[in-house]
Amino acid sequence: MAGREAGAAAASGDRGRITITEIARQAGVSVPTVSRVVNGRSDVSPATRARVEDLLLRHGYRKRPAPSTTRAQGAALLDLVFHDLDSPWAVEIIRGVEEVAHAAGVGTVVSAIHGRSGDAREWMRNLRSRASDGVILVTSALEPVLHEELRVLGVPLVVVDPAGSPALDVPTIGAANWSGGLAATEHLLSLGHRRIGLIAGPPRLLCSRARLDGYRAALDGAGITPDDSLIVPGDFRPDSGFTGCTALLGLPEPPTAVFATSDQMALGAIEALRRRGLRVPQEMSVVGFDDLPEVRWSAPPLTTVRQPLADMGRLAVRTVLHLARDEQPDAPRVELGTELVVRSSTAPPAAR
Amino acid sequence: MAGREAGAAAASGDRGRITITEIARQAGVSVPTVSRVVNGRSDVSPATRARVEDLLLRHGYRKRPAPSTTRAQGAALLDLVFHDLDSPWAVEIIRGVEEVAHAAGVGTVVSAIHGRSGDAREWMRNLRSRASDGVILVTSALEPVLHEELRVLGVPLVVVDPAGSPALDVPTIGAANWSGGLAATEHLLSLGHRRIGLIAGPPRLLCSRARLDGYRAALDGAGITPDDSLIVPGDFRPDSGFTGCTALLGLPEPPTAVFATSDQMALGAIEALRRRGLRVPQEMSVVGFDDLPEVRWSAPPLTTVRQPLADMGRLAVRTVLHLARDEQPDAPRVELGTELVVRSSTAPPAAR
Repeated sequence: MAGREAGAAAASGDRGRITITEIARQAGVSVPTVSRVVNGRSDVSPATRARVEDLLLRHGYRKRPAPSTTRAQGAALLDLVFHDLDSPWAVEIIRGVEEVAHAAGVGTVVSAIHGRSGDAREWMRNLRSRASDGVILVTSALEPVLHEELRVLGVPLVVVDPAGSPALDVPTIGAANWSGGLAATEHLLSLGHRRIGLIAGPPRLLCSRARLDGYRAALDGAGITPDDSLIVPGDFRPDSGFTGCTALLGLPEPPTAVFATSDQMALGAIEALRRRGLRVPQEMSVVGFDDLPEVRWSAPPLTTVRQPLADMGRLAVRTVLHLARDEQPDAPRVELGTELVVRSSTAPPAAR
Repeated sequence: MAGREAGAAAASGDRGRITITEIARQAGVSVPTVSRVVNGRSDVSPATRARVEDLLLRHGYRKRPAPSTTRAQGAALLDLVFHDLDSPWAVEIIRGVEEVAHAAGVGTVVSAIHGRSGDAREWMRNLRSRASDGVILVTSALEPVLHEELRVLGVPLVVVDPAGSPALDVPTIGAANWSGGLAATEHLLSLGHRRIGLIAGPPRLLCSRARLDGYRAALDGAGITPDDSLIVPGDFRPDSGFTGCTALLGLPEPPTAVFATSDQMALGAIEALRRRGLRVPQEMSVVGFDDLPEVRWSAPPLTTVRQPLADMGRLAVRTVLHLARDEQPDAPRVELGTELVVRSSTAPPAAR
């Protein structure tokens, strides 16, 4: 496939050496035609476009940044790409991105690619034809070969809340997940809890691992040997919080508090407790992670770790606009601070 | 202002008569320059652009639809405009819009204009320069003069969940709010409730009025004379549900059930009840409206009226794409059905 070949070419170091004239010669078309393809114009036949794009990819041609006048006139676009648009979590990021992009006269194109290769390729095709000025990927929904395509097209890329570690030259913006996991657990310890259950996130996501490690570090700090039976799997969605909490309640010695590593799982856990007639926080404390707007209004209002999702979105736009001007961001890896927000779902453990 | 003049010109019937040649003559520029402005290209000086746009607006010039090849190659964009991006409600609409737009190769540009005239004008400026193919307005966040500008630019417009009644030629997609209000109230009546409180939405929104009228119709149908002291104001946000429910509890004869006309207000109402130690549904039934994904996980899971927000978004895209092809939609005014979803927040009234 063209993309893979481009990856190989880029790795072998010839990226950026080819000229548009040479591409035109090899494709057997005029220089303006190549230029139209590079600039995502629509007045090129599909066959010609495919031939030219193939050559551009194969030779790792890098588009120069657009002149700043284009941007000043507000035609600029950036692409904000999610895995799914099925969580209130997404709207927080959209809100931050839209705010800064709007102020800069940049339109925010929102897409979801559902982890499907076909959706991702189609998105990439559309991205090219609308000549997007930058891409913000949330949780890295793209295959590596598409990262490489973006690089070849010269479209700047920033990853928010990285799932894994992308290539070193891709800036990432995350939250201080480890510190948040530590703070949530220390809060429960300070209330007197000693058996603290944890409902984990998807193991493939770095943030899941960081929150779990923060929990373990807090227990270590309090001189408590972690009991692995208190750690149950989850996927950040409410159903898995319900199931995870039910599993914890079924243990021979259940915990007195639960750290659900997402707010949605915390809501599922509270429902599992309610179904058994267990009161929160009197009979079980629950801490979440995210601070989605609605958990101020859960019953009871949720103690949680605030993840600055809108701020992460805001910083992502600033970073991508920096890159679009060929400036390097201040730091390639940023973690914004998380903050414990104490509400009504946590209390000292009931006397035994 | 240019926009207002254009409105007057359009109203007086000369829209569409002017040619691009005549605009070029009056502006003292070439025909290709006018064409570049019409097509939102960036290679025009700001002063020239302003002069040409002013003439285009004043004469009500209507751009012809773009040739279908442009769309087929995926360069198409549509604008999805919210008042605010601060509710999980928004992400449901975005999800539906993105799904259908993505499948059609159309990018979805999401904006929030916060009811501020400056934000709206800037959005309009950006819309023009990115040559958007259509606009979906949610709850009509735009001043009428901007509606007129869209009309003059020939950009098709669809309003989702209309706040008021837009001009007759603007298609609207709403939910069956009246029927939903009726169904929620009839459900409470069927459980045996006779004193049913209602927390209303913002009076300027048509949907608020329709839900209230549905409530009144259900009471009438049951032979109950509505008691206006049981109707308290709200603004669809959780805080107003909290305040509204508190007011209802302070009545000499409080209701035995509350119909909160948004899910977020229902969550606020449940919190007001929890703070007073009143159990839902044993001591008070609560019904919401919307069926946001998270209310399946409220404590208790909420009985509510499902509003098909994602479906409304999907239909809005189909309608705007019809209009962009100069086809008329099947029906200019559509209301998608609402559906009562019975969960655990409603029960027969406690025996007195």
